[in-house]
Amino acid sequence: MKIEITATYPGGQYPIYIGQGLLNEPELFHRHIQSSQVMMVSNDVIAPLYLDSMTKLLSDYHCDHIIIPDGEMNKNLAQWNVILDQLAKHGHHRDTTLINLGGGVIGDMGGFAAACYHRGVAFIQIPTTLLAQVDASIGGKTGVNHPEGKNLIGAFHQPVAVIMDIDTLTTLPEREFRAGIAEMIKAALVKDADFFTWLENNMDAILKRKSNIVIDAIKKACTIKRDIVARDEKENSVRAHLNLGHTFGHAIEHNLGYGQWLHGEAVAVGIVLAAYLSMKQKWINTHDVQRIEALIKKAQLPHRLPSNIEYDKLIATMWGDKKVKDNRLRLILLRSIGQATIASDIPQDHIEQLLKTI
Amino acid sequence: MKIEITATYPGGQYPIYIGQGLLNEPELFHRHIQSSQVMMVSNDVIAPLYLDSMTKLLSDYHCDHIIIPDGEMNKNLAQWNVILDQLAKHGHHRDTTLINLGGGVIGDMGGFAAACYHRGVAFIQIPTTLLAQVDASIGGKTGVNHPEGKNLIGAFHQPVAVIMDIDTLTTLPEREFRAGIAEMIKAALVKDADFFTWLENNMDAILKRKSNIVIDAIKKACTIKRDIVARDEKENSVRAHLNLGHTFGHAIEHNLGYGQWLHGEAVAVGIVLAAYLSMKQKWINTHDVQRIEALIKKAQLPHRLPSNIEYDKLIATMWGDKKVKDNRLRLILLRSIGQATIASDIPQDHIEQLLKTI
Repeated sequence: MKIEITATYPGGQYPIYIGQGLLNEPELFHRHIQSSQVMMVSNDVIAPLYLDSMTKLLSDYHCDHIIIPDGEMNKNLAQWNVILDQLAKHGHHRDTTLINLGGGVIGDMGGFAAACYHRGVAFIQIPTTLLAQVDASIGGKTGVNHPEGKNLIGAFHQPVAVIMDIDTLTTLPEREFRAGIAEMIKAALVKDADFFTWLENNMDAILKRKSNIVIDAIKKACTIKRDIVARDEKENSVRAHLNLGHTFGHAIEHNLGYGQWLHGEAVAVGIVLAAYLSMKQKWINTHDVQRIEALIKKAQLPHRLPSNIEYDKLIATMWGDKKVKDNRLRLILLRSIGQATIASDIPQDHIEQLLKTI
Repeated sequence: MKIEITATYPGGQYPIYIGQGLLNEPELFHRHIQSSQVMMVSNDVIAPLYLDSMTKLLSDYHCDHIIIPDGEMNKNLAQWNVILDQLAKHGHHRDTTLINLGGGVIGDMGGFAAACYHRGVAFIQIPTTLLAQVDASIGGKTGVNHPEGKNLIGAFHQPVAVIMDIDTLTTLPEREFRAGIAEMIKAALVKDADFFTWLENNMDAILKRKSNIVIDAIKKACTIKRDIVARDEKENSVRAHLNLGHTFGHAIEHNLGYGQWLHGEAVAVGIVLAAYLSMKQKWINTHDVQRIEALIKKAQLPHRLPSNIEYDKLIATMWGDKKVKDNRLRLILLRSIGQATIASDIPQDHIEQLLKTI
């Protein structure tokens, strides 16, 4: 089973392949690699599983590789620099292709290296986590973290192809799998009420990782993201909706220290906070909030702030977050399940009160 | 006297202002700054001359500044990182504006910081050298050098405005002024035979820095660059013509060590080499080569390789340069004065023989 959907952006388009066994199909790669040079970028958890077979698959090419230590704490300018140094040292030209094999960290950082090497070279995303498959690998947002904020340094740079082989999910730990579900729920809340209902009905099958259901879920989530990004590549308008739960989520991750909570876990609580805040504005009702909380619980994701969080620091981080426009905090809230909105005028005390009760 | 020309690119357009006294016109800046935050990026030669008056001019804004040590050797990822750190530390949001006040190094590196901070913020170029005015400040090529190659790391990111105040040229040393003339000659050779003749007739007045002649020359050179970039923002085709003399030039700079020869000086010799190589292909004749060499000499620019250059290293650098496509050296040569061409099949021995005679 292989599904292909096409993502478009102002300068072109690229395919997203979703299926099983895709990492054993050399023609998928041949189709998208333009020269004899390839640089595989992976991490020390994924590389031992796939690097050998991928290298064989790409034996027609001059294939170099870089292995980055796993984890969000390594998504930084220093590791990004290592990728650039290796590209330069091995004499990669402007027609080289990076192949980012790993989760969101590898995709974001490898993509950002591709964005800046020779002012932009080609890259293929091979997301190996559910979270990267449904969210991070699509749309061309690349970047690294900075001590002052997550994804503070980066670029918009679109891949030449995204290849999602759900066989890579078989080795994904439970907790990381569930973190990916958080971004699926987010996508449904932002744009597609039917998908939200579908998730309510199919969550058990997703958690059991039934292949066809998982492929279907990934396809639905990717399609939502694909459609939004096509309308607004550089997040001047509707793309911001995809940040539902993320201003809270980033602040939680930042204050706990990256790596304590997974991104998807922090986003899950962020979604609950956004739901309550939307109810406070009388945009959604108690029943909607209950459905949202119930689905997040059903996905076995956290729905309350971590007990050791410091509220003052959380607030301070949020006001420093890059979603602040001209010093006013811009939050993504819900008009209904399936319809997000940008809210720039939420009273600060509403937010502070909420953080103390959730 | 103030001239305004408009540059276009696939995502928008921006004005290029050329004239005298422009750094005393606050409305020029107000027109292009979108929020209350401004970050001035300058170097330790230019900042003492203009930073105070510019800060007064921008007193309506929250105005921070960064001063980078002058010189090509500081156009690197470490200094770029300093700019990003300062932006983050001072809490600049995604609607901030960088103002790059300096030569090509400041424009390229500040532009690259603007390209990557929050995945792209606004920037205004204020080029203060002739070279930056006629070439580097237009077209959105930003970046820094890497030990393995010049401008190896960077991005395409277009400014919101370019402000060229020729009063800033009054303090520019002779040698740097002449280096800027090399890029003017290059522009003429690539695209405009009439401008080449005009330069032959007006070189003395240019060297005497007669204001109206200098403004006219800058305008003509900028217009050529503007037109080429509008057709090919990301250098997939004709924009490469602007690299006339640059593959040789970069190799010279790299092997002498950056800072020994100015970029424009290395390009001047690169142009002469390209002219001889074009004659060897029987595309231009002896008379054309004589005119080109004569104009470069008239501009008091070097027209022969530095005596201490090592040919083997020069060749090795050229084959590692980013203008190599799929391992074939791609040079920009001349079909005639005013018409450049991309040549990918020049025999290596033609190049090596030439380097030993020039």
